[in-house]
Amino acid sequence: MGNPKVVIVGGGFGGLACARALHRKPVDVTLLDTHNFHLFTPLLYQVATALLNPSEIGYPFRTIFRRSPNVRFRQELVTGVDLEHKLVRARNGHGIPYDYLVLATGSTNNYFGNQALAKHTVGMKTIEEALRLRNHVLSCLERASQETDDGERRRWLTFVVVGGGPTGVEYAGALAELLKLVLGRDHPELPPDLGRIILVEGMDRLLGAFDQRLSAYAERTLAKRGIDVRTGVILGHATDQSVHLSNGDVIPTRTIVWSAGVRPNQPPGTEHLHTSRSHRLAVDEHFRLSGYQGAFAIGDVASRSANGGELPMLSPFAMQGGRHVANVILQEVKRGPTADLGKPFRYRDKGTMATIGRNAAVGQIGRFRFTGFIGWVAWLLVHIYYLIGFRNRLVVLAAWGWNYLRKDRPIRLVVQADPDPIADSLLPPSPGEAGDIDQRAESEREAARSSGP
Amino acid sequence: MGNPKVVIVGGGFGGLACARALHRKPVDVTLLDTHNFHLFTPLLYQVATALLNPSEIGYPFRTIFRRSPNVRFRQELVTGVDLEHKLVRARNGHGIPYDYLVLATGSTNNYFGNQALAKHTVGMKTIEEALRLRNHVLSCLERASQETDDGERRRWLTFVVVGGGPTGVEYAGALAELLKLVLGRDHPELPPDLGRIILVEGMDRLLGAFDQRLSAYAERTLAKRGIDVRTGVILGHATDQSVHLSNGDVIPTRTIVWSAGVRPNQPPGTEHLHTSRSHRLAVDEHFRLSGYQGAFAIGDVASRSANGGELPMLSPFAMQGGRHVANVILQEVKRGPTADLGKPFRYRDKGTMATIGRNAAVGQIGRFRFTGFIGWVAWLLVHIYYLIGFRNRLVVLAAWGWNYLRKDRPIRLVVQADPDPIADSLLPPSPGEAGDIDQRAESEREAARSSGP
Repeated sequence: MGNPKVVIVGGGFGGLACARALHRKPVDVTLLDTHNFHLFTPLLYQVATALLNPSEIGYPFRTIFRRSPNVRFRQELVTGVDLEHKLVRARNGHGIPYDYLVLATGSTNNYFGNQALAKHTVGMKTIEEALRLRNHVLSCLERASQETDDGERRRWLTFVVVGGGPTGVEYAGALAELLKLVLGRDHPELPPDLGRIILVEGMDRLLGAFDQRLSAYAERTLAKRGIDVRTGVILGHATDQSVHLSNGDVIPTRTIVWSAGVRPNQPPGTEHLHTSRSHRLAVDEHFRLSGYQGAFAIGDVASRSANGGELPMLSPFAMQGGRHVANVILQEVKRGPTADLGKPFRYRDKGTMATIGRNAAVGQIGRFRFTGFIGWVAWLLVHIYYLIGFRNRLVVLAAWGWNYLRKDRPIRLVVQADPDPIADSLLPPSPGEAGDIDQRAESEREAARSSGP
Repeated sequence: MGNPKVVIVGGGFGGLACARALHRKPVDVTLLDTHNFHLFTPLLYQVATALLNPSEIGYPFRTIFRRSPNVRFRQELVTGVDLEHKLVRARNGHGIPYDYLVLATGSTNNYFGNQALAKHTVGMKTIEEALRLRNHVLSCLERASQETDDGERRRWLTFVVVGGGPTGVEYAGALAELLKLVLGRDHPELPPDLGRIILVEGMDRLLGAFDQRLSAYAERTLAKRGIDVRTGVILGHATDQSVHLSNGDVIPTRTIVWSAGVRPNQPPGTEHLHTSRSHRLAVDEHFRLSGYQGAFAIGDVASRSANGGELPMLSPFAMQGGRHVANVILQEVKRGPTADLGKPFRYRDKGTMATIGRNAAVGQIGRFRFTGFIGWVAWLLVHIYYLIGFRNRLVVLAAWGWNYLRKDRPIRLVVQADPDPIADSLLPPSPGEAGDIDQRAESEREAARSSGP
């Protein structure tokens, strides 16, 4: 086939939207991802809190593109991008040549160069981390039940969540429900009120990207549900036994959940490119990388500004970028390299939402603000709508219904697949072996903070 | 509470049945298991073939005993049983004293002392192995898609199943369906008929514990579905690249599934006890260990004979034994150590069944034999009936219906939880670190073979 070759690196919201927009168009698309499924990350916290199975928020790429003869998936780790020779190097294959390249590699946990943080906290960015967090929390309850020392028991049952953005707020709310249900009913040997959740946020309020009024509501609701919210405090020092906060507080704990920062996942081979202060690749109004014909970057890894601020690392920006780039590529393919590429990208703000738990959520869409039960129902509808696959929608709805009526968290298993060398040859390296920790200086924290939610 | 203390080691079919029979009786029961859930092992192969989630065949012990104030669960690895001092030692806790001890530790893979076998094969006894097998097979398909060499591609797509008992037959049948669905629809870059399954059995027929006629039916049905059945052949030598059979055949493959033998999981501290030729603990007609007051063994780890043969390592024997022991303990508690313990144990044969795939199963119950669609429906009903939990029954039925109508295998994710030190402090050691391989001589193979299915 002589069609131009499009290689998309990363099948998150951006890469997937781009590939879908190229479905049955006159291009040959290769979509690369280190996992064999697209992950609906907004519901990761429900996997981490034993409500959903991974298969309910993960949808195999090959199934998505079953009816797309021109879109091929390959499970590959990209080891290098050669923009000069228009070639992507992959771990298990030969080089993959391209005419058009779309970098959609997303973001990863940002530990601001602090190795101890990376070691002693559990993140919430990947399915592997969410499953680890489920295993970890359930195991802490078991260990607490084995413990005879009061102080140690309390340490097992103290959970510190760092970062008061949507991820931290949603996880803390869901964890409170899990503890209430499981501690109360399944661990009669433990005093039900011994479980303790502390949510730590550096800024003076939770949900900094939201309206002040919604932040206040979230804080109030979490407090009512027994969560100890501490704003204006940052994490100073972490061990496997405790957390030291910037205000001098020391909290004995075995669990520190890290949701305080992400950084773009820059593909190897792009280190020389111009980036923004938050280390996202600089792109023009059509998401093109300057100086390299046919190369694009979208989503969390790309930097676009509007109204004086960098656009947020959120799925609408990624999806809109993916579709925009698909159109630009098709214009060029149809009309040649000098074609008019159409209107520059304009971001349509879809608003943001965060759920706080049963019957409570906050959202802002345009000038509308909503909270409480209405916000919660809106949150449910939006998330069901965006979930891929009829079966997943059905199963997630059923799981939510079950949870709502029965107050049950049915996936309470501590499970770990035995390691497999063949699977390991495809999956991304696990955090221990990754060298994944950003070594850049603490000063980045400021940059990241000033650049959005 | 001054009630007598019953400690049950292992929450498989036997241990669970025993604990349930002691529900709300005048004893304090502690149930120990290395997992926090009871596993319905007959459906493990459906987890391994991407049809069910682990949570659908695993049910948390603490939930099972929510309404049993006298039954407490503890997730513990038993490191020693001290029959003299009536004490069970656990990895994370202090010694646990008992008045009555029920050993129900089940069985594990038997590699007959062959380290290479243990290293180069994937077992099917635990949830960890089933998940590994799912990850492994799906990853082999991905690797085949990356491959340019024909021979190598064929090696990735050749799957050897060793052992033609129910586990091997059921897995081979389900794998054939998975390959047909996934290869055909999701990997258009691979020739759909390149996938190959070879089922190897040492005896001259499959399903040795079944009627000859049923074996012949199973063999015919598997062959019709494209599975290469080789009986009267044993595995000689295995590497990560190939299998060498006793008849001289060498099969290039990356996948060897081991279902050719199990051995009892003897609890540490019982090595000096008398065992049968198959290494199961010798027990009397009430499952008592001779010489130690209040100590019992049931299920796979216990040896009872009837009609001149050792009773099989099957769930009915374990469950009946568990209930029998519960009654014996209650008799003693009520009437004192000299009480009449009632009738000796008598095994009621519940028959056996094995499914071969869509619309085909074999079963024998008493003098009845059935095959085909009727056998398959009977198999479905029996397994739904024995599954624990209303929700699980519902979800499994729905999954089966979906699979039947849509010919879909929805859980096709390669997923591996990140390692967690706290969870690892509770879970059993993974096979690499376990030293789990039976070092006893090859001659055992004969013993195991002569002693039943």
